[in-house]
Amino acid sequence: MLDALRATLAGIVGAPWVSSDPVVLDTAGRDALKRGHRPDLVVTPGTTAEVAAIARACHDARVPMTVRGAGTGYTGGAVPIRGGLVIAMSRFNRILEVDAANLLAVVQPNVITRALHTAVEAQGLFYPPDPASLAECAIGGNVAECAGGPRAFKYGTTRRYVLALEAVLPTGEILRTGSRTVKNVTGYALTDLLVGSEGTLAIITEITLRLVPKPAARHTFAATYPTIDAAARAVGAIVAAGVIPATLELIDAASLDAVAAHLGRSMAPPGTAALLLAEVDGGEAAALEEARLAREACAATGATSLVEADTDEARAAVWEARRELSYALRRLAPRKINHDVVVPRGRVPELYGLIDGIRARHGLVIAAFGHAGDGNIHVNLMVDPANHDEMRRASAAERELFAGVVALDGAISGEHGIGYAKAQYLGLQLSAAEIALMARLKHAFDPHGVLNPGKMWETTPEDLRGLSGERAGD
Amino acid sequence: MLDALRATLAGIVGAPWVSSDPVVLDTAGRDALKRGHRPDLVVTPGTTAEVAAIARACHDARVPMTVRGAGTGYTGGAVPIRGGLVIAMSRFNRILEVDAANLLAVVQPNVITRALHTAVEAQGLFYPPDPASLAECAIGGNVAECAGGPRAFKYGTTRRYVLALEAVLPTGEILRTGSRTVKNVTGYALTDLLVGSEGTLAIITEITLRLVPKPAARHTFAATYPTIDAAARAVGAIVAAGVIPATLELIDAASLDAVAAHLGRSMAPPGTAALLLAEVDGGEAAALEEARLAREACAATGATSLVEADTDEARAAVWEARRELSYALRRLAPRKINHDVVVPRGRVPELYGLIDGIRARHGLVIAAFGHAGDGNIHVNLMVDPANHDEMRRASAAERELFAGVVALDGAISGEHGIGYAKAQYLGLQLSAAEIALMARLKHAFDPHGVLNPGKMWETTPEDLRGLSGERAGD
Repeated sequence: MLDALRATLAGIVGAPWVSSDPVVLDTAGRDALKRGHRPDLVVTPGTTAEVAAIARACHDARVPMTVRGAGTGYTGGAVPIRGGLVIAMSRFNRILEVDAANLLAVVQPNVITRALHTAVEAQGLFYPPDPASLAECAIGGNVAECAGGPRAFKYGTTRRYVLALEAVLPTGEILRTGSRTVKNVTGYALTDLLVGSEGTLAIITEITLRLVPKPAARHTFAATYPTIDAAARAVGAIVAAGVIPATLELIDAASLDAVAAHLGRSMAPPGTAALLLAEVDGGEAAALEEARLAREACAATGATSLVEADTDEARAAVWEARRELSYALRRLAPRKINHDVVVPRGRVPELYGLIDGIRARHGLVIAAFGHAGDGNIHVNLMVDPANHDEMRRASAAERELFAGVVALDGAISGEHGIGYAKAQYLGLQLSAAEIALMARLKHAFDPHGVLNPGKMWETTPEDLRGLSGERAGD
Repeated sequence: MLDALRATLAGIVGAPWVSSDPVVLDTAGRDALKRGHRPDLVVTPGTTAEVAAIARACHDARVPMTVRGAGTGYTGGAVPIRGGLVIAMSRFNRILEVDAANLLAVVQPNVITRALHTAVEAQGLFYPPDPASLAECAIGGNVAECAGGPRAFKYGTTRRYVLALEAVLPTGEILRTGSRTVKNVTGYALTDLLVGSEGTLAIITEITLRLVPKPAARHTFAATYPTIDAAARAVGAIVAAGVIPATLELIDAASLDAVAAHLGRSMAPPGTAALLLAEVDGGEAAALEEARLAREACAATGATSLVEADTDEARAAVWEARRELSYALRRLAPRKINHDVVVPRGRVPELYGLIDGIRARHGLVIAAFGHAGDGNIHVNLMVDPANHDEMRRASAAERELFAGVVALDGAISGEHGIGYAKAQYLGLQLSAAEIALMARLKHAFDPHGVLNPGKMWETTPEDLRGLSGERAGD
């Protein structure tokens, strides 16, 4: 049957664009989780019509198909865990239009996020979403996962910027959802539903994005605090002053220690429990005013240091701790299990209390940092995969973390998605009725379950065995 | 069967909360369209558990049920066109919580929008969506229709502010979608899908809304232009200066003439084709800076007058034209057929060209004004229902308007929804595959089609006969 499908696919895209080369299959079977499952074939279409024909062929043959963008996801969204076909979108890599008058851009899904930033900023425009992987990740994946990033506090996540989509249903029909207008209530919100659907509902082939004017000015500063509570009070005071910074990042003591060891010097005074990294932007006068108000709020809540960055060099120095974090954490343990949990911003201290308890109960090294404004904290369990006892403790810790976050009115994923890494935990947050409704929605798009099967919720236990969390990595 | 259902309902909510009083039925059969269809019964539940029991009873008996909020909709969303039950949400009228630290409010659906504005602004917070009916409309209806309003240009429409919903499925299960966090990618975006679903997918019983800090300052001014093109150039110049005003309203000559006749004095110099009404808000310095930039952009694009409003009295005078518009239009004709079409903002001049052509071809009085920043223009066909020839011409004009808007990359509804008023036109904008997909989504929520049947798309022609557009009014 695979040979027949291969011939059909070659007829659609041309034989050079269908591959079963082991290296190609191996690459297409992994994302940032590092290990997954090989597909049987990789096809690389060049047009929407080809994508539609491929979908029809897979649908008719009941062969699983999984869409692959840049492969930078953390939850296995692009991993073909049931084999079958990977549809690689690498040829859909063009910025089709930047329309300054209407503040929008039309792009193909495999445009790299940073390339879009560069292109629109050259015209005085701004695309705010800035996931940490922006130098490598693709806009299509950002849309599929509803990616966030530091600037989401002020600007919101990817969904707020998607005006319209062209997408291919698993059954082969081509949809055009939304429009080139920011207001549109014609029919159900298919655009909003497809954003964050993790490649399980339709294959995105073109994206129309809303842009905003590029802010004229930005100001950056760092403030340190002796306790997480004090840092949280500073966040509250900034908001109470009417300021929503573009970014408001929090870095905890464990993370700061790792950076200090990595750089050979400390970024913060002794006794620092939390460093807040804030950036405000806007018009010249607006940014100045907000920077002043935010710094005053930080000082009034007991900052032990307050470093302003008035120059590009100073700004780079302030961001150094943040940028070095990933490298620094690699020194702590061979594996980082990174969970992007989120709680209401006022409950961040309780989240850190929960983490302290988990750290003590399970004897684990945990570094937690992230987007304090959104309450979206990346909790990194630092482990050695060769240490089976530690891995068992990490597994127990992970479940406690998710259950605790839900009890704090939070969510088990703020921006990475569920994929298969968190599928076993979905029931901690959602009821059986809610998951059943989602399964019915999936069925409405994909009656035979051929598109990215086995994701988001557990269908059968064997789908997910051995594929849980970042522990599934190499 | 109705008697049996009535007894069941009385057992759920208590007999006083079930009514078949003709006056009650009559009121519950109409919204701002003025005429609709009487239900057989009106039930007024007091708790979510009662709503769930009512839904189960209707589902089991296959009786249509339609949810009613404040009844201010323009497209018949609350009208029970197949009879059955109206579920009146009037007892769900409490603001449950305003949480300043987490910038959110939890409300029941029948809270009046202005009451929410007042409550949150008293705490220095801000809920931006401001539909024109805000003194009467309910938040639940705003959510069901994804209401907009003038401030949507800067702040977005209702969907951007809905964090979480409690909602009852037509089958009686209680859902809790979303969370108290601004980031949440756990499962499909059910919250975003329910917003704007026009009461056809679930019965909303509780709403968690995102708030923002209340802007410290605002500045208002009016500018007049000799042509629509010049006004559109001003809009473009404001955006190009990096300013997104909170509101940017455009009022055309036909509308200004009506206001002048109504007030007995002109709001604009002779020869004015368009009046732009702008309001910027933000921090003290930010608002001043944006006001200056926006006024400079207006002057540079040839404003024939520029009136700043530095005081509350001056601001009231500037808003007078806008506020008097609805009253003034009533002088032009007995009936106003109001369509909230939307085009990309750069194509507003083409929309006015389309309207000019329709006016000339069909000999109709048409006043068009609205949200220039969003390209969302309310096109009012002024007609006399007793003049059958004029009504026929208006019907032809309406279809030309919608087809023309779609050709301009726009949408047939920007904020009023489809309901039954525009159901016959859905196919002008959406493909058969898209409408079929929406019907499958509806089925996933409502397998027997008992919730608000006959809305959004035409199922059988008799559902909609005589019920099209605002012409269906009294």
